[in-house]
Amino acid sequence: MANSIYRASMLQSYSQLLFQPCLSNKHCVPKKTNLLCFASSQLNPARSEVSFCTGTHLIPHPNKVERGGEDAFFVSNFKGGVIAVADGVSGWAEQNVDPSLFSKELMANASSLVGDLEVNYDPQILIRKAHAATGSKGSATAIVAMLERNGTMKVASVGDCGLRVIRKGQIIFSTTPQEHYFDCPYQLSSELVGQTYLDAVVSSVELVEGDTIVMGSDGLFDNVFDGEIVSTLAAHSDVVEAAKALANLASNHSLDSRFDSPYTIEARSKGLDVPFWKKFLGMKLTGGKLDDITVIVGQVITSAASPQLT
Amino acid sequence: MANSIYRASMLQSYSQLLFQPCLSNKHCVPKKTNLLCFASSQLNPARSEVSFCTGTHLIPHPNKVERGGEDAFFVSNFKGGVIAVADGVSGWAEQNVDPSLFSKELMANASSLVGDLEVNYDPQILIRKAHAATGSKGSATAIVAMLERNGTMKVASVGDCGLRVIRKGQIIFSTTPQEHYFDCPYQLSSELVGQTYLDAVVSSVELVEGDTIVMGSDGLFDNVFDGEIVSTLAAHSDVVEAAKALANLASNHSLDSRFDSPYTIEARSKGLDVPFWKKFLGMKLTGGKLDDITVIVGQVITSAASPQLT
Repeated sequence: MANSIYRASMLQSYSQLLFQPCLSNKHCVPKKTNLLCFASSQLNPARSEVSFCTGTHLIPHPNKVERGGEDAFFVSNFKGGVIAVADGVSGWAEQNVDPSLFSKELMANASSLVGDLEVNYDPQILIRKAHAATGSKGSATAIVAMLERNGTMKVASVGDCGLRVIRKGQIIFSTTPQEHYFDCPYQLSSELVGQTYLDAVVSSVELVEGDTIVMGSDGLFDNVFDGEIVSTLAAHSDVVEAAKALANLASNHSLDSRFDSPYTIEARSKGLDVPFWKKFLGMKLTGGKLDDITVIVGQVITSAASPQLT
Repeated sequence: MANSIYRASMLQSYSQLLFQPCLSNKHCVPKKTNLLCFASSQLNPARSEVSFCTGTHLIPHPNKVERGGEDAFFVSNFKGGVIAVADGVSGWAEQNVDPSLFSKELMANASSLVGDLEVNYDPQILIRKAHAATGSKGSATAIVAMLERNGTMKVASVGDCGLRVIRKGQIIFSTTPQEHYFDCPYQLSSELVGQTYLDAVVSSVELVEGDTIVMGSDGLFDNVFDGEIVSTLAAHSDVVEAAKALANLASNHSLDSRFDSPYTIEARSKGLDVPFWKKFLGMKLTGGKLDDITVIVGQVITSAASPQLT
């Protein structure tokens, strides 16, 4: 892994962009990949604490490039670092509702509520309050991860955004998607029929220095296998490059009609396949899934912590 | 799901068996499946708390039936409930060491340390102390889960024992195995080269009433797909019957040379397969994995809690 001090020194130029709420396409479709490190610089460290050094990359659905796609995300340096992704449910377009509005407002609200006392650094409460504050019509899947300085990462997720933790070249922690049926994930919604923070899966995992986390929308996990995530991270020690490489890999797979993707494997397992006469000819359902692709890669770094008063 | 009061009333007859440390084959190879419920019976409940209602089933490796196999487990009603599985590494037999001694002593030690003040209801510390207290030669994978009355289940795992949480017919949480290479898991050992509690993956998940958890040795997860776990639970609302059904399913698959098991799929993904000339004939590596099979099924039930004095 690359030197953390080097990364920390690159913080200032990008942090402003990332702290902006993802309300406009401009902020959600970075022209360049983003790097953010949260290393403290206390002069008298009393003990070692951890924080995220993050890189992000978003590639919109090829048909939605002009509007910037329907994914949204934010990264914050509050405490050990907060990262979140929301994925607007595209079906709203059939009702003449822009599916990106809900996800982007949700992330903007979540971003501004990160330090809220009532949220109390609890990702499930952050989802509750951000959802309650969102007025746009639509729905979205969402995942929030909050790293505490002691290494505990709390995660709350509704739907099929995902997160992996990689330690020493192995995935040691994965979230599991929730769906009503194939391609219909649990979702926070403007409508009463949708899910709420109460439906979130809430988990946590103890992280240590050197761990890498990968958070993404389903556009990543539907197109890239876990083994590919591990090998891609092994080839890119820089978090910015890793996020870019993972997003590009997902994008390439999504455009490859012959690729046997996680998405089509899942589809076939649910009984969806090519017509029987094509099966008879040895054909099967293959291909990636065209989608918005958001990737956040976070590396856990140790930073000197300030003495505790307690 | 079956009525929790009914299950609670069945507690007394089996609890003693389960609280015995798994030092002898008798305790680790139940002649019947085991049921254990931890419902409190306070007269003046102040608030609702949760606990496990568990069923267990162990089927030894067909060649190791007489010695009872090399898996060990325990179930305790401390706080919301503690469950644990250890799987002795069979390679020790080549050095004339009984591979079951280490796993059984480890579980016996863990069982007696559950309420230890220094453990402080932390599964990673329980592993540390139980490992330190174990004098047998050998090594084992191990997983421990501790349910707090508020619904937080803490998990610590070294190696490839596993745990799933099922909510509303879906897996919402999974542990991920750690291995050095195919078929060589991380393992607590009597030797310095082995892993320690520091190598454990430590995670937690918030459980709610009605959630079902399935813990097992790799003999379960190498032979049974996640989808089969979900469908088996759907067909058996009783935790005892569910544990038995899952163990039997794993056992049947393990004996089926044509079954394309999770184990052989993993093997093929690591490049292990039949010789090239067999591949040329359209053959591939298939079959289940003969192994000890331990299954613990826990259902989260609500019990009336006593008023808090604090």
